Amino acid sequence: MRATVIHAPHDIRVQEVPDPTIQQPTDVVLRVLRACICGSDLWAYRGESPRQPGQRIGHEFLGIVEEAGHEVSGFAAGDLVVAPFVWSDGTCTYCADGLTTSCAQGGFWGSAGSDGGQGEAVRVPFADGTLVKLPAAAAADERLLTSLLALSDVLGTGHHAALGAGVKPGSTVAVVGDGAVGLCGVMAAKRLGAERIIALGRHSARTDIARAFGATDVVAERGEAALAAVRELTRGEGAHCVIEAVGTEQSMRTATGIVRDGGAIGYVGIPHGSGTGLDLDVMFDRNITLRGGVAPVRTYIPELLPDILDGTIDPSPVFDLTVGLDGVPGGYKAMDERTALKVLIKP
Amino acid sequence: MRATVIHAPHDIRVQEVPDPTIQQPTDVVLRVLRACICGSDLWAYRGESPRQPGQRIGHEFLGIVEEAGHEVSGFAAGDLVVAPFVWSDGTCTYCADGLTTSCAQGGFWGSAGSDGGQGEAVRVPFADGTLVKLPAAAAADERLLTSLLALSDVLGTGHHAALGAGVKPGSTVAVVGDGAVGLCGVMAAKRLGAERIIALGRHSARTDIARAFGATDVVAERGEAALAAVRELTRGEGAHCVIEAVGTEQSMRTATGIVRDGGAIGYVGIPHGSGTGLDLDVMFDRNITLRGGVAPVRTYIPELLPDILDGTIDPSPVFDLTVGLDGVPGGYKAMDERTALKVLIKP
Repeated sequence: MRATVIHAPHDIRVQEVPDPTIQQPTDVVLRVLRACICGSDLWAYRGESPRQPGQRIGHEFLGIVEEAGHEVSGFAAGDLVVAPFVWSDGTCTYCADGLTTSCAQGGFWGSAGSDGGQGEAVRVPFADGTLVKLPAAAAADERLLTSLLALSDVLGTGHHAALGAGVKPGSTVAVVGDGAVGLCGVMAAKRLGAERIIALGRHSARTDIARAFGATDVVAERGEAALAAVRELTRGEGAHCVIEAVGTEQSMRTATGIVRDGGAIGYVGIPHGSGTGLDLDVMFDRNITLRGGVAPVRTYIPELLPDILDGTIDPSPVFDLTVGLDGVPGGYKAMDERTALKVLIKP
Repeated sequence: MRATVIHAPHDIRVQEVPDPTIQQPTDVVLRVLRACICGSDLWAYRGESPRQPGQRIGHEFLGIVEEAGHEVSGFAAGDLVVAPFVWSDGTCTYCADGLTTSCAQGGFWGSAGSDGGQGEAVRVPFADGTLVKLPAAAAADERLLTSLLALSDVLGTGHHAALGAGVKPGSTVAVVGDGAVGLCGVMAAKRLGAERIIALGRHSARTDIARAFGATDVVAERGEAALAAVRELTRGEGAHCVIEAVGTEQSMRTATGIVRDGGAIGYVGIPHGSGTGLDLDVMFDRNITLRGGVAPVRTYIPELLPDILDGTIDPSPVFDLTVGLDGVPGGYKAMDERTALKVLIKP
């Protein structure tokens, strides 16, 4: 089959690789219907997250079960399923707690030795603990399928950030990051009942989506001016809940600067760079909570799925460029250069 | 009157100062019955927290109202009251939310221009928002009075840490720090229903108190051995809830090392030193929450007071040395050298 392989920074290729097969009785082989490129894939693309030459890449996908190992009880050939961005056994104490990302038997698609999502097929370990079934009819609904793909990462990650930020009915929320996760954070905050949602961003294509997803205010300023603008919108105090969906020192500083005393930063941007952007003295004096991390999206899919199916939420607008497998390298380039927000792949 | 004054690091003196008077109609002048020395006073004593020469010091006290300004409605001469370690107006949005430590009109006893608690009397600004009335009969009960003094800081701070750590019925809690706040953290965790409480400490006089306050296990090891010991007590996973009551880089590292994935560190140790001890990559991968800060103890007094009055909890054992005003400099020395846990002052 053909799959996306990263050979070096900025060297993404689509090439022939061995077909996946059932290796463990708990495996499923899945034919990928839709995949996509994540903002976090760009850290590998840019060489900021090290990869071995020849590693697969891509961790967001949905598709059709082609073959199921004999210990798989929940899925059979022909099932339409979505995969979260890590697999997990579904049976350990962490999985029982919903913290599937800490499963000792879990792993990340595209880690050395595993398949990545940006290819024609994937071997899925611990299929019963990992996959979630989707209605078969969704396969024929182009927009719905795109929307469901967001369950694999960005929607659940945005939801995790909103929970981390403590969003509840009536909350005031500020969102740092205008990428797909930040936008899904806006959607998740709205879904959890936030009354006021302030999106920070200066690219109208993105802030328009933020508004469509529920943002009540957009702050286009940067740096100190952005902090002042958010404070002006919040009686000079800042937002009770801040979603940090970037992961840089600067974005964390911004988050700290716009959160109200006693509030919380829900952080889901993968930390990168040398500094954390956290000033513990300030956090201490102002009682700021930091809560978040890698999102256990598998746990959130059963809660979010019905809202997508009944049309309550539709995250599909975060995908603004569609490519076939051959177009994946160009898709990386487009996201790296910010000419695309998020690239949908139809293998 | 006489009060404690800090002139320079290690230069604490008890000397004549002007008698406090009503300056604002919302003031109260309070005659101090009991005060004490806080572990955090030692940062000033050691020169690690800068002070202007001649500043007052001491932020934990209770006493009798001597005179009340004409806008004070809740207190009259003769009332027995306890003061939290910051004053607050009781009327702003932060006070309404219970975050009295963020009150814009609030302040810290002993800050430049204000009275400190380690003296014969104190001018209390915003008395209605700050003080809490105690039963008059308590003044005649030596042990009860000592126990009630813990409401001014250490008990409420331990409670804040326990809340930050997310302690609830059945929780497993580990406590870093064997000072009065750490010990009160043990007590607060027990009070909130923790099932297992692991106290880290190697001084039996302190760990004995920890056990009396509810600790089920004591870990005397240090460094890596301490982490291993806590993990061994927690199925290899760590504690869901960790109370950090020291504030050093090393203590935060320990806290991070013993918290379970998905757990929370409730931190109340005032950060000091050059590093935070926080590794954001680790916190991200393991979904560790950091929640805490300066404790709004005023908010907690009404909840904790009844439990002291009815004997459910008795934090008085954290006071292990009693001095008069003349003995205050020696009390600092004893705490600095760790020959005393916490010094009670009878002015």
